[in-house]
Amino acid sequence: MLPIGLFDSGVGGLTILREIARALPYENLIYFGDTARLPLGDKSPDAIVRFTLENAKFLMRQNIKLLIVACHTACSHAMEILEHLLPIPVLGVMAPGISDLLAATKSKRVALLGTAATIASGVFQTQLQTLQVYPIACPLFVPLTEEGLQNHPVAAYIAKYYLSPLQGAGIDAALLACTHYPLLSAVIQQTVGPEVQLIEPACSTAQEVFHCLNRHNLLNPKNTIPEIRFFVSGDPEKFRRLAKMFFPFPIKKVQLA
Amino acid sequence: MLPIGLFDSGVGGLTILREIARALPYENLIYFGDTARLPLGDKSPDAIVRFTLENAKFLMRQNIKLLIVACHTACSHAMEILEHLLPIPVLGVMAPGISDLLAATKSKRVALLGTAATIASGVFQTQLQTLQVYPIACPLFVPLTEEGLQNHPVAAYIAKYYLSPLQGAGIDAALLACTHYPLLSAVIQQTVGPEVQLIEPACSTAQEVFHCLNRHNLLNPKNTIPEIRFFVSGDPEKFRRLAKMFFPFPIKKVQLA
Repeated sequence: MLPIGLFDSGVGGLTILREIARALPYENLIYFGDTARLPLGDKSPDAIVRFTLENAKFLMRQNIKLLIVACHTACSHAMEILEHLLPIPVLGVMAPGISDLLAATKSKRVALLGTAATIASGVFQTQLQTLQVYPIACPLFVPLTEEGLQNHPVAAYIAKYYLSPLQGAGIDAALLACTHYPLLSAVIQQTVGPEVQLIEPACSTAQEVFHCLNRHNLLNPKNTIPEIRFFVSGDPEKFRRLAKMFFPFPIKKVQLA
Repeated sequence: MLPIGLFDSGVGGLTILREIARALPYENLIYFGDTARLPLGDKSPDAIVRFTLENAKFLMRQNIKLLIVACHTACSHAMEILEHLLPIPVLGVMAPGISDLLAATKSKRVALLGTAATIASGVFQTQLQTLQVYPIACPLFVPLTEEGLQNHPVAAYIAKYYLSPLQGAGIDAALLACTHYPLLSAVIQQTVGPEVQLIEPACSTAQEVFHCLNRHNLLNPKNTIPEIRFFVSGDPEKFRRLAKMFFPFPIKKVQLA
């Protein structure tokens, strides 16, 4: 019963793991948070590609059957390389989010919220050319969530600072193109107003994982008692403490990778 | 004319480099910012020691005559190891800051502001046992300055959030025990009030560097036309852009390490 592997720079990818654990309750899962080097989203393209390949290699050594890149920064810089290099299926969070966004908007005016590197890559904008896109880099959102401050007034203040250019732009949807941002969705929603639909790729990604495993005949039998394992490159206890705030499944042990 | 080497996780150590360049105008300097892996201050002790040794090794390969650890997080975790391992003199920013703080306080009540890892290490607190110390970890200060937001209202808001426990504590001095924090000194001063003296170790460190080189007979002759070289592990252009905001000497080129 080979596991599915996911990685992200920190706790953000847990928003994806959560939906996969719900949608595919018989699958063994391995999560790797590269917390020693986070945040990824303000790093150079070279560093992002290098770290992404190293993280994928770590999960490959755990003998995974499918790799999920649960980080938009890594997806926007290294999806093609990973698909080319790895002998197993690779799924990202980019395509599911883009589909959901295209389906959601009626005004065809949308916000794209992501890390500095994701926004600068222009990869999302290229795929959203039929829409009027307002791209906004929000570099402090990741450190905010990694410090567990997502419900603190400081989060609302920072959200207001980043998102004020959206006022009066007539957008009706915003893509949370960073897996950390759903942890701030309450404060983002409050800032952009109730008429803007926030799109996060977790549920669609989980569906895509199901279809992919099904297609490759890799789904676990329904009597599997699954295991979720956690690895980090930084402080295991800090990760565990943060993760418990919003990951609703038991976190038995977090190991140093 | 061997150079002096300094490293920090990002632009923070430039506050030290600046004073050394002023106090020792004939010295060649090499600065390394490990921007691909910053911030260091929220990483695990293991990761901090590992990264610090790697950064020191990089500078040793540049054939430096003296190493300055321009980062309190690295100092609080790895000074002894570095002093033990390296064949050249090693200076940190901890001892100078502590001396200045002890000289400055009359009320013997002081604040210690640093990264989560520096505060958690307890190293400063141990050396300040004669004082009543209010230690405060300010994890968002480094990302704030690395995003160039030190003069933005968001910085004032975050400073207020971290420093409000100091109200009414009767402190008369605060040690900025992170080389990034002097970039926020205006906003910190405004928050803690004019009666609190902010202590940063840059000038004292520069003096100590002078004495150390003098003692070891390593000072450059006064006709040397010095060179300052910059290396980063992340995005050279981003570093250059940020550094220009507060480093008053020409930055000709920033190289990828």
